[in-house]
Amino acid sequence: MSDAVDPAVAAYVTGLAENAREASRRLALMPRAEKDAALLVLADAVDAATSQLLEANADDLERGLSAGMPESLQDRLRLDADRVAAVAQALRDVAALPDPVGEVVRGSTLANGLQIRQVRVPMGVIGMIYEARPNVTVDAAGLCLKSGNAVILRGGSAAGATNHALVTALRDSLAAQGLPPDAVVLLEEGGRDAARALMTARGYVDLVIPRGGADLIQTVVRESTVPVIETGIGVCHVYVDRAADLQMAEAITLNAKTHRPSVCNAAESLLVHRDVAGDFLPKVIAALAGSGVRLHVAPEIQGYAAAAGAAYDLASETDFATEWHGLELSVALVADLDDALRRIRQFGTGHTEAIVTDDRSAARRFTAEVDAAVVMVNASTRFTDGGEFGFGAEIGISTQKLHARGPMALPELTTTKWIVEGDGHVR
Amino acid sequence: MSDAVDPAVAAYVTGLAENAREASRRLALMPRAEKDAALLVLADAVDAATSQLLEANADDLERGLSAGMPESLQDRLRLDADRVAAVAQALRDVAALPDPVGEVVRGSTLANGLQIRQVRVPMGVIGMIYEARPNVTVDAAGLCLKSGNAVILRGGSAAGATNHALVTALRDSLAAQGLPPDAVVLLEEGGRDAARALMTARGYVDLVIPRGGADLIQTVVRESTVPVIETGIGVCHVYVDRAADLQMAEAITLNAKTHRPSVCNAAESLLVHRDVAGDFLPKVIAALAGSGVRLHVAPEIQGYAAAAGAAYDLASETDFATEWHGLELSVALVADLDDALRRIRQFGTGHTEAIVTDDRSAARRFTAEVDAAVVMVNASTRFTDGGEFGFGAEIGISTQKLHARGPMALPELTTTKWIVEGDGHVR
Repeated sequence: MSDAVDPAVAAYVTGLAENAREASRRLALMPRAEKDAALLVLADAVDAATSQLLEANADDLERGLSAGMPESLQDRLRLDADRVAAVAQALRDVAALPDPVGEVVRGSTLANGLQIRQVRVPMGVIGMIYEARPNVTVDAAGLCLKSGNAVILRGGSAAGATNHALVTALRDSLAAQGLPPDAVVLLEEGGRDAARALMTARGYVDLVIPRGGADLIQTVVRESTVPVIETGIGVCHVYVDRAADLQMAEAITLNAKTHRPSVCNAAESLLVHRDVAGDFLPKVIAALAGSGVRLHVAPEIQGYAAAAGAAYDLASETDFATEWHGLELSVALVADLDDALRRIRQFGTGHTEAIVTDDRSAARRFTAEVDAAVVMVNASTRFTDGGEFGFGAEIGISTQKLHARGPMALPELTTTKWIVEGDGHVR
Repeated sequence: MSDAVDPAVAAYVTGLAENAREASRRLALMPRAEKDAALLVLADAVDAATSQLLEANADDLERGLSAGMPESLQDRLRLDADRVAAVAQALRDVAALPDPVGEVVRGSTLANGLQIRQVRVPMGVIGMIYEARPNVTVDAAGLCLKSGNAVILRGGSAAGATNHALVTALRDSLAAQGLPPDAVVLLEEGGRDAARALMTARGYVDLVIPRGGADLIQTVVRESTVPVIETGIGVCHVYVDRAADLQMAEAITLNAKTHRPSVCNAAESLLVHRDVAGDFLPKVIAALAGSGVRLHVAPEIQGYAAAAGAAYDLASETDFATEWHGLELSVALVADLDDALRRIRQFGTGHTEAIVTDDRSAARRFTAEVDAAVVMVNASTRFTDGGEFGFGAEIGISTQKLHARGPMALPELTTTKWIVEGDGHVR
């Protein structure tokens, strides 16, 4: 239970949200061609603002440096000419995607002659709460505009100057195009209370999407009264079954852990069927160690880790529930498939779980019984991604069951409306 | 902000929820034929328990009577042999519906050969919080079982004995069939704290659906940290356009208001284009008055109401935002379609809005611009109903935009899972 939001901040947020709502009504009626044209002009506006963006970003970085910001965060925050060009290009890519709005999802003519159809329509006003990644600012604006939604952005304060410059470029361009600038709103005042006011602005905001670390997401889920889509926490397992092709298992484990260890679809835990431990563990541990992966191992793995000269420690219970965000991996033996399923139920976060096996029945049981957004057979967990799935864009990976599950793209930013046409029908 | 839940009650609820989770894992894997067979046996068990059910219901009614329960609530609570038979029949009807689980929603083979498909799967554990309507107990149990979910029921305390008898019959029958009785769990202890514990049992409960009056729904929406589907508050408008067929408009208005005035898809407000007021209002007011409808009128309608000898009063601003749940209707004039759209934005609850018009362009604007679960053209608002839409069953009518909007049936009780099959694919 937390303190009430400062009423002045709440009024500031609902005022901005009312403006965004007004803008959203215009966006909802724009045909695809107009939205695509607008996105291309916005992309040019971002390109044209490159020098201002880099200046603002330098200010943020300087502030970060003097506050002792870690290098990994500086890297996320940093813009250069190439990154600005990539951000602009992302808007052009969104323009090229199909428009979800207006799709007839289903429909029929009822026995009484009433014609009913369920049509995809924009959500309205979407709140994005995220950390200091400037590309999210523009991606979210582009995806929301394309799906006919206004967006209220609440980025990390460390990127304050960069986000201000980005959103100014976008809003100026919208206004110059005769479109409502309040289609893209940046929450700049009010500190944490503004974020809390955004999460509780029921009736003003239709959906809140948090993107960032576990703390941010848990806070939003706990405090929000606006519907939320929870994204991205991934304690993903690779389970190497007794019937696995061990060479394939090694390649998948290595890829899942080391290809991009900081992201949510990287593997955090390796489960190995005890019948193949003797054949598999020496090789995979040597390969992981060779890639600089530190291991957190169950007691029965210690001998293998020591023999391979790997960097390791004895895993605590917590280690098996940890998203490492880096070159670390927990490793445990399992007695059988049931044991693997039990561990995944206990420690998994419902993001992505993979089995490596040539046993058809093990694969069938794994895909049927694992409760996760994505279940992989003989493939790296890294494939859980909107781009890889062919969606062309991604606003996050939902780990909840309501509305969206797995990689979310444009259709997930819409809702539906039933349209019923009659001829004086009464009951 | 409310007080913390009694820890003993929280432990009671999470204990029940863990049992339900265990049961849900079994349900999730049951093929349709087994679920349908179980539903038919459950229906027979309800029939066979008729005398115990009527006894328990008589106890509840007696308690209600001595507590001064209003007749309308007594009627909702009351069971007789016919109603018990209808409750049992509803389970057989659910058995006859298609199974949503296992449906492949979409899928493709990616350029790299990975095969991906999105498959419908059960939610897991669903919490239902509702008032004293015994039929909801059995309907929810049947729909959840059919969709592979376990359900935790928290019905109104006024129906405590009836719900106990119903759930005992269902659980005994499940056990006798060798199925987990915890597929259907009744929250009987802990009072209001138990309901609050259910709403905040994140990780234990996947979805909470409140069904009942505005207060109940608002409480759940405000206090729940488990995802919620908001149902059923309906301030529905009928807008009679300048180009309406006035005889049709009269029939639709009458049907929408008087066919079943207590339900959420009944009309609560009539908006009349001022150009047809003179022709339309005398007739419709006389017809409404003849059906016993009391009017709450804008000042410019007073003359018509008085001339027709209708029961009326001058409407307050609040009256236009009121769900009457009875034979009452607010009436206002509008200057044009824009004015009607503005009033619907201001007072509507996003449930069902209807226009009566022969003007194609007015109908197109109305369906495009009204932001509601269902938008009707030349049809009564009463058609917003799972049964009418051909869904065969309904667990409520969602008035939110996330996950489900409008009448909800079996597919809305499911989520999806991506299954990705490779051949050693890595990135």
